[in-house]
Amino acid sequence: MNLYEESLLLHEEHRGKLRVEAKVPCADRHDLSIAYTPGVAQPCIEIHKDPENSYRYTGRGNTVAVVTDGTAVLGLGDIGPDAALPVMEGKALLMKRFAGLDAWPICLDTKDPDEIVRICKAIAPGIGAINLEDISAPRCVEIERRLIEECPIPVFHDDQHGTAIVVLAALINCMRLKKTKPEDMKVVISGCGAAGSSIIRMLYNYGFKRIYAFDSKGCVSADKADSYNALKKELLQYVNLDNQHYENIAEGLKGADIFVGVSAPRLLTKEMVRSMNPGCIVFPMANPEPEISYQEAAEAGAYIIGTGRSDTPNQVNNILAFPGIFRGALDARATRISEGMKIAAAQALADLLPEEELTPENVIVSAFDDRVVPAVAGAVAKQAEKEGWVRK
Amino acid sequence: MNLYEESLLLHEEHRGKLRVEAKVPCADRHDLSIAYTPGVAQPCIEIHKDPENSYRYTGRGNTVAVVTDGTAVLGLGDIGPDAALPVMEGKALLMKRFAGLDAWPICLDTKDPDEIVRICKAIAPGIGAINLEDISAPRCVEIERRLIEECPIPVFHDDQHGTAIVVLAALINCMRLKKTKPEDMKVVISGCGAAGSSIIRMLYNYGFKRIYAFDSKGCVSADKADSYNALKKELLQYVNLDNQHYENIAEGLKGADIFVGVSAPRLLTKEMVRSMNPGCIVFPMANPEPEISYQEAAEAGAYIIGTGRSDTPNQVNNILAFPGIFRGALDARATRISEGMKIAAAQALADLLPEEELTPENVIVSAFDDRVVPAVAGAVAKQAEKEGWVRK
Repeated sequence: MNLYEESLLLHEEHRGKLRVEAKVPCADRHDLSIAYTPGVAQPCIEIHKDPENSYRYTGRGNTVAVVTDGTAVLGLGDIGPDAALPVMEGKALLMKRFAGLDAWPICLDTKDPDEIVRICKAIAPGIGAINLEDISAPRCVEIERRLIEECPIPVFHDDQHGTAIVVLAALINCMRLKKTKPEDMKVVISGCGAAGSSIIRMLYNYGFKRIYAFDSKGCVSADKADSYNALKKELLQYVNLDNQHYENIAEGLKGADIFVGVSAPRLLTKEMVRSMNPGCIVFPMANPEPEISYQEAAEAGAYIIGTGRSDTPNQVNNILAFPGIFRGALDARATRISEGMKIAAAQALADLLPEEELTPENVIVSAFDDRVVPAVAGAVAKQAEKEGWVRK
Repeated sequence: MNLYEESLLLHEEHRGKLRVEAKVPCADRHDLSIAYTPGVAQPCIEIHKDPENSYRYTGRGNTVAVVTDGTAVLGLGDIGPDAALPVMEGKALLMKRFAGLDAWPICLDTKDPDEIVRICKAIAPGIGAINLEDISAPRCVEIERRLIEECPIPVFHDDQHGTAIVVLAALINCMRLKKTKPEDMKVVISGCGAAGSSIIRMLYNYGFKRIYAFDSKGCVSADKADSYNALKKELLQYVNLDNQHYENIAEGLKGADIFVGVSAPRLLTKEMVRSMNPGCIVFPMANPEPEISYQEAAEAGAYIIGTGRSDTPNQVNNILAFPGIFRGALDARATRISEGMKIAAAQALADLLPEEELTPENVIVSAFDDRVVPAVAGAVAKQAEKEGWVRK
């Protein structure tokens, strides 16, 4: 039986993956009279006096809504909100498993960004934070940005930023290992969708300034700006700042120090990796098959290699990021999850590996390392306070 | 410490009343690979092939969203969606305690009926049923009716129908005890809001035809139709069919057999009860203080008395209805909760008391009787199938 068959059986046997349980006793009339009417009027009154009391008397401060419209589910695409539910249940499961959060799926039968924004704002009073999930690009970027500005609770789109945070963490450790600085690195990114755009933005904001981005139409450059959507136009602030005219990604990779791929299988050849600088760093993370296999990249002389897979070293796994991010944002009563908070999360992840443990096969900690969530959550909460994104 | 203080402490100690738990193992990488990626793709694909598979591979078929806009919370009124959350958590708790359902609160920051309808329809793909809660009248009636027609999953507004179902159940047993028929009874209803309207409709549909309804403006009658909203106009189909001109409720109660109150404290006097027919039935259910106290009604000669309180006999408690209603609707894969299904629930509740157990102090079973939910759920499911309101 393969993983897929096993998964289907598991889902059928348990009828899904989540259940709701009572945190309070409810055995008799007295229990009900304080958990429900008439006693429950008192916490209601206290929250009515001051809405912040909802964090004191309800589960709100530990609750995350996992919201999707089912338009970009795994590699399956636009399979709709019904079919997205198993993934959303899974995401909620991870929130519980890794950060003790009470997350619940909301699968929306609308693809209209305005409507999705309106609904997320409307449901905010009962929840602590919103995790957007599997919403197609570029709509997901607009939806998240509007919600970050307009929604009173933290909103985070993991598909955009989860991988970006872990990639940055791994690259920070690569810099430590190579004893070099981000501004000296030539970086090539393949893929400018939701994840690629966030990686580009985050690397730039951290200090990488020589970034070149490629998509199916070649090198992103100011010359082609007229044909770009708003999201890609925005990337011109961060990439190709010396206006190179690379014909294709093979050209771009010559003399590059870092490759990060969130694009398509088998896009890189050994020759391309050989054309990169000695000691180069290669993160082919296309899912489930990477841009170049770990073995081929190694044979071609890549110094540090990371993929999305669990069967090779340096797994770039977004489970390293989102549980701690939400935990920290909720612990701090943050009003948003800022770019600075994401970078703080990456730095905290990187810092979990002390100098003596750093090797080319170990630039990022395991997702099952118990120190991860507390470290990320602590850094995120601290940064939220530093930036003033916390409730008074 | 009174109930209110105790409740506040409980809510603060536990930070709310609900938590989410995993139904599947998630200890190691293998567990995650079947609960989440990559294995989870398989249930997604199966649901994409046939959306009905969402009931097979997810928790959808056991899930109820408890939706409010916070406009009519307990006796507190329009305290807003934040402050309504403790009640919604409590309702979800009861769903779990009494019917094993996984219910989750959704507190909406909008009072616009169109928007509330849109949101409920939009969230339907991830849930099995919707319980509307604490939405003010007459908006709640319009919202529920539109959702019953437009939403693919069952929608039920407990504030309207919960009390109505239990009142009907109790009255069915009063008829058994008195060996009389509903059509021979003169019924006076005080209160024509959400609950009152549903009581009137349900009693009429069951067979009570001599119903007179009173609100703060007196007896509902066709003469005043021009001043009525749509909901009250509709009641004219069911009440005052012989066009009486009662000056006030005291007039109406003369020679009445049944009084049902969902209105205001201390509205009835002993004299009014004395003016009713011998062997009269009095259900003063205003909360927390009834239209007339149990003791006064008894002193005035009422034969059967029921209130909303747990400290006197015959507690009309909506906990008797909604858990079984949702359980039955979900078990049957019902597409709606029809009037017939509600009446079937009332009949099943009534039937739980055999002839020999029926007394004036025992016309309705206890909410803690373990037979209640299976009986109600079974009757509701059976009626759904009979009426054809089930998924193919």
